[in-house]
Amino acid sequence: MISKNQIKLLRALGQKKQRKALGLFLVQGEKNVLELASSTLTVKHVFATAEFIEQNQQALKDFECIEASLEDLTKASTLVSNNAAIAVVEIPTFEVPSAQGMMIALDGVQDPGNLGTIIRVADWYGIKHIVASSDCADPYNPKTISATMGSFGRVQVHQLDLAHYLETSNLPVYGAFLEGESVHKTEFAAQGILLMGSESHGIRPEAAKFVTDKITIPAFGGAESLNVAMATGIILDNMRRQHS
Amino acid sequence: MISKNQIKLLRALGQKKQRKALGLFLVQGEKNVLELASSTLTVKHVFATAEFIEQNQQALKDFECIEASLEDLTKASTLVSNNAAIAVVEIPTFEVPSAQGMMIALDGVQDPGNLGTIIRVADWYGIKHIVASSDCADPYNPKTISATMGSFGRVQVHQLDLAHYLETSNLPVYGAFLEGESVHKTEFAAQGILLMGSESHGIRPEAAKFVTDKITIPAFGGAESLNVAMATGIILDNMRRQHS
Repeated sequence: MISKNQIKLLRALGQKKQRKALGLFLVQGEKNVLELASSTLTVKHVFATAEFIEQNQQALKDFECIEASLEDLTKASTLVSNNAAIAVVEIPTFEVPSAQGMMIALDGVQDPGNLGTIIRVADWYGIKHIVASSDCADPYNPKTISATMGSFGRVQVHQLDLAHYLETSNLPVYGAFLEGESVHKTEFAAQGILLMGSESHGIRPEAAKFVTDKITIPAFGGAESLNVAMATGIILDNMRRQHS
Repeated sequence: MISKNQIKLLRALGQKKQRKALGLFLVQGEKNVLELASSTLTVKHVFATAEFIEQNQQALKDFECIEASLEDLTKASTLVSNNAAIAVVEIPTFEVPSAQGMMIALDGVQDPGNLGTIIRVADWYGIKHIVASSDCADPYNPKTISATMGSFGRVQVHQLDLAHYLETSNLPVYGAFLEGESVHKTEFAAQGILLMGSESHGIRPEAAKFVTDKITIPAFGGAESLNVAMATGIILDNMRRQHS
């Protein structure tokens, strides 16, 4: 059973302020909770149905599991579906990486679903680090975590002073603009930062001034733009085909 | 003002059954409504704020515009935001195209947001026709239309007996599977059908048997899969770099 205090905690973790104060976040849904078994994250509790606990004994063996009804889990969850399991997990602290390898930088991407989808596609292409301006969506927002489809455990998102980070990096910065060199023709370096702006404002001037290469996805039809997560995936594919 | 009967109509058009019976669908949000001006779709009415009508006189000049308060529009809308304008539009009838050029085929893609995102990226890459199995999401679902970001007017989605369509087509059918030839190495024909399955079931056997070329997006990290819309965009980019 989930106690009243535990329900209060789960509710509180729906809010960024509380996540920050408590140093905890929620991982919801069967697939995401099972991913925790192979991650280095510290899991405080897992609330789950008896059936889920029974079926996943091996994956859950190191966690403190608390049995709850699907009804209680649904009530406690901040998401609408996929409620057989909810984990309370410590927000990890890690050092900001020096710019190396292939990285993604995000300037003002505010939709948590987009951020989560970017984390997922980054993981697909083997990117380990995303640096994000401090006004980007919270990487620990339940909607972000949900959209990562388990990739939250393999990609680190660092919120920081983006302009400063770009200024002090020695890597080429590939900035996605609507005008720029076609990614079909760009020669990408083996190490570099892909900088993506928000859907509404693009890359802002403070970050744009550190762009070394303006790139664009060539358009063949009538659409004016692509979703930022989609554009990130397509550009990563173009980078990786040269450096696998 | 929106009359009671008109509100009833707007509400009804949130349901597939009613859209089918009345032959009408909703286009909501400023950007999508303005796209109607350059489309060949037949617009019955536009409900919009006085401000929106005033600011877009030129684009709206051929439409019957009915002024309404933002409050009424928000109440009438099936979406949560972007309610300055709602249009009631006739569902067009068009012939199923013979398989030619570059096309997309969708097998059981049931999420309207994914379908809308696929329509948007198809439009970006200049694809005009999508054929979809009859159990795919409704192309006229308000969530689909919203996710197209205006591309609904430039891409035709045909729901049909997909296996039969693929059987009778003479084009190569590129099926996206988790195993298959890397799209970085595939030589795509100038004309062909890209077949995508649903996230949960992939391409089903009835459609899979007409696949001539199994393809895959090479993975470099830990993610098990990509969202179907993301995968569609990445593969289209790979096709277009060979045939622009």
